[in-house]
Amino acid sequence: MKMYEQLAGELEEHLAAGMLKAGDKVPSVRQLSQQRNISITTVLKAYSLLESRGIIESRPQSGYFVRKSSHGTHTLTADTDSPARLKPPPVASNVEISQLVLRTLKTISRNDAVPLGSPYPDSSPFPLTRLSHLANNVARKSNSWGVLDDLPPGNINLIRQIAGRYFLNGLLVDPNEIIITVGATEALNLCLQAVARPGDTIAVESPTYYAILHAIERMGMRAIEIPTSHKTGMDVDYLASILESEKIAACMVMPNFHNPLGIVMPEENKKKLVALMTRARKPIIESAVYNELYYADTPPSSLKKYDTEGYVLHCSSFSKTLSSAFRIGWAMPGRYRDKVENLKFVNTLSTSAIPQMAIAEYLTQGGYDQHLRRLRKIYQQQSRIISSVVKRFFPSDCIISEPEGGYLLWVQLPPHIDAMRLYNDALERKITIGPGNIFSNTGNFTNCIRLNYSYPWDSDIEAAIITLGKIIANYRQPDAPHP
Amino acid sequence: MKMYEQLAGELEEHLAAGMLKAGDKVPSVRQLSQQRNISITTVLKAYSLLESRGIIESRPQSGYFVRKSSHGTHTLTADTDSPARLKPPPVASNVEISQLVLRTLKTISRNDAVPLGSPYPDSSPFPLTRLSHLANNVARKSNSWGVLDDLPPGNINLIRQIAGRYFLNGLLVDPNEIIITVGATEALNLCLQAVARPGDTIAVESPTYYAILHAIERMGMRAIEIPTSHKTGMDVDYLASILESEKIAACMVMPNFHNPLGIVMPEENKKKLVALMTRARKPIIESAVYNELYYADTPPSSLKKYDTEGYVLHCSSFSKTLSSAFRIGWAMPGRYRDKVENLKFVNTLSTSAIPQMAIAEYLTQGGYDQHLRRLRKIYQQQSRIISSVVKRFFPSDCIISEPEGGYLLWVQLPPHIDAMRLYNDALERKITIGPGNIFSNTGNFTNCIRLNYSYPWDSDIEAAIITLGKIIANYRQPDAPHP
Repeated sequence: MKMYEQLAGELEEHLAAGMLKAGDKVPSVRQLSQQRNISITTVLKAYSLLESRGIIESRPQSGYFVRKSSHGTHTLTADTDSPARLKPPPVASNVEISQLVLRTLKTISRNDAVPLGSPYPDSSPFPLTRLSHLANNVARKSNSWGVLDDLPPGNINLIRQIAGRYFLNGLLVDPNEIIITVGATEALNLCLQAVARPGDTIAVESPTYYAILHAIERMGMRAIEIPTSHKTGMDVDYLASILESEKIAACMVMPNFHNPLGIVMPEENKKKLVALMTRARKPIIESAVYNELYYADTPPSSLKKYDTEGYVLHCSSFSKTLSSAFRIGWAMPGRYRDKVENLKFVNTLSTSAIPQMAIAEYLTQGGYDQHLRRLRKIYQQQSRIISSVVKRFFPSDCIISEPEGGYLLWVQLPPHIDAMRLYNDALERKITIGPGNIFSNTGNFTNCIRLNYSYPWDSDIEAAIITLGKIIANYRQPDAPHP
Repeated sequence: MKMYEQLAGELEEHLAAGMLKAGDKVPSVRQLSQQRNISITTVLKAYSLLESRGIIESRPQSGYFVRKSSHGTHTLTADTDSPARLKPPPVASNVEISQLVLRTLKTISRNDAVPLGSPYPDSSPFPLTRLSHLANNVARKSNSWGVLDDLPPGNINLIRQIAGRYFLNGLLVDPNEIIITVGATEALNLCLQAVARPGDTIAVESPTYYAILHAIERMGMRAIEIPTSHKTGMDVDYLASILESEKIAACMVMPNFHNPLGIVMPEENKKKLVALMTRARKPIIESAVYNELYYADTPPSSLKKYDTEGYVLHCSSFSKTLSSAFRIGWAMPGRYRDKVENLKFVNTLSTSAIPQMAIAEYLTQGGYDQHLRRLRKIYQQQSRIISSVVKRFFPSDCIISEPEGGYLLWVQLPPHIDAMRLYNDALERKITIGPGNIFSNTGNFTNCIRLNYSYPWDSDIEAAIITLGKIIANYRQPDAPHP
């Protein structure tokens, strides 16, 4: 095969992989010649060949473009947004991490579905214009582009602002304890690795936030699920008895506006949990990502407040209140601080500079509290609406949560309902839900679903809830007579 | 203690922790009252008390500010940029990850030191203004702020552009194989975890890039160092013999412009390595972060080029060519693709959206190749200068590398030189170097140093090299007579 034929073949395969859409410009003759160090004549010949095959077309003074009406294999995906998977890479069979969650989240990103299953807040009430403006301002300062200023623990102004917010909310923290991370997700992972080793057992709530289960599974650790009440949170007495019989390395909890239950652990339970674990010299990893989204007059207290010996590793982020796309979170890891800082450095080196600086600037300029007050009001109102609509259109024997903050409703359906089946049936009607299956390894919540009510209430959402109610009503009870 | 006295005490402690600098505004009376749900009178009383103690001062129509000339404990740090560590958090003793590297990197960020020890490129030739402009453009589109579009594998336009660049450089890749990560650091970590388990042994070059050692150490794996020549790279025959006697789970290499050696593995060695590992069905993790910084006419080939069975996990980033502060890298993990995608999701959920979109837009608009050609020329010129200056001012029995790309010079000093001592002595003269100790666990390179030549050559850098030469000359040889 001649060189230009080989090049034409490569380019055809490149296009077939969905690399360029119909109408896209292909690399210029000069660019390809320079880059590959081959003659311009060879590239021209290759392009002529592809043109004769109807795959690309030349436009005067503009270069070569992928043909709109070409019949090459690449037209299979020529007008879609996803590249075709013509050559799927072979996959190792041993994938431990729940594919289900990632698949669920990916279906949520379908723009045409009602996003009741989304874990993310609707971003429309967020101060995105101001944040964009600030991101632009900090991006213009070229010295903001060196990685060096943002080595762990992270941007010092952001750290100061975070410590200042804790002070406002009644918790005195040492700014030196704070380490900026890529969202709370990275913080949870680093804290877990700092306190436990593969094979260790970690006590978690049941149900629990799936990212906690993932972090545990990923590190080759085991999760032990502790009964968690809709009223009082994790059963601390049960945990105490488990501590006596089993070797528990740590415990991971979400004491405020628990995902998915929405509850706040009562004050005395928080104190009891910290005292128990401190006596046992065991760390508690606390996720506090919804803390600022309280409906009451004052913020809930963190476990960190009762931490006298540095055993509480507190993790949070701005993803639920400012922007999840910024990926800015933090850890306050108590006595494990230096270890977490090292792990942060090893895991991702540093956190993207511009988002850190933009948020620091936003917090410095003020207005975050007004924004949060508005957000709390919106979520509280919407929690009332969704609760009343679910009560009206779902079977009467459903149990629904009474969230005290956040934007997530938990619905326990009758025992014969299979949440995964509901998930699939709902998806066909362009509705997503969070199936209970992803919040536990016990199989205890396969008749539960989580619904996101952060989106402004509208007729589509109402219709989606009514549709869900109808689907559920159609699931025949096992002992019901055939119609 | 009365409530206002307690509040005053808290605020004083908050300031003492270095939270606010002299002249900074303290929270407004209204804000603190609202946030803590206490009366305005109580806050006013607390602020008056602090004013009487000379810690804050009121300014008409403006509120309360930290006093410039106050005598409170917080003035200790009132004018510094780092918060004071008045209450250092207790630290767990078991910190495995090399503190040395992080400490080294932190000293590099001192603005007053000559950064010969930096691993990062000087950012002055980078297209920062254009990137800022593009970051601003994408930030203005509010739909760019949802996390959803950027779930793993990442931004589809960026993925297409990356695949397009591989095509230009002569490597045909399936865009579906690419997963965007937080720099190459995250990519290396995820790939390693995808292919090996705690307790496994990983073959690495000797010396090797310290982040590779960190990733291995962190996962509870063992590194076995394979002799690596200044001319031909990793000794593949030695690796083959090791594979017969030891259980090796994977191998991690940097075949092009190796950090710190600067070498390119010859073509036949690359083929041999991939063939060896493929026969043994063992994965190779390839770091390709310097690939675009070649001095020759054409880009070096990747191990990925010879990968027929999907055993090569290729990792790279834009940190060495566009911006390290963006934190945008990627993995092409071959047959381990889905596993790496899952781990990415679990590790950091997604990668910051704006940097991904800004780089995608930059690549779409063109000009990257011109930028790279300029960068290559600069680095090649500076490599000649630093080599000649080092040859002139260092002892004649030094061996210096001949980099074929990148911006790092490796100098092997006489055997009696202790690189850590040199590191400390140089730091006192405000010069940083990369001590050989951080590139190996064997102790084989304690007389070697790595020097960064990405910065525009100037008299400060020249003086620093001369100073280093003098310090080295002053280290007495063990068997030399006393003067």
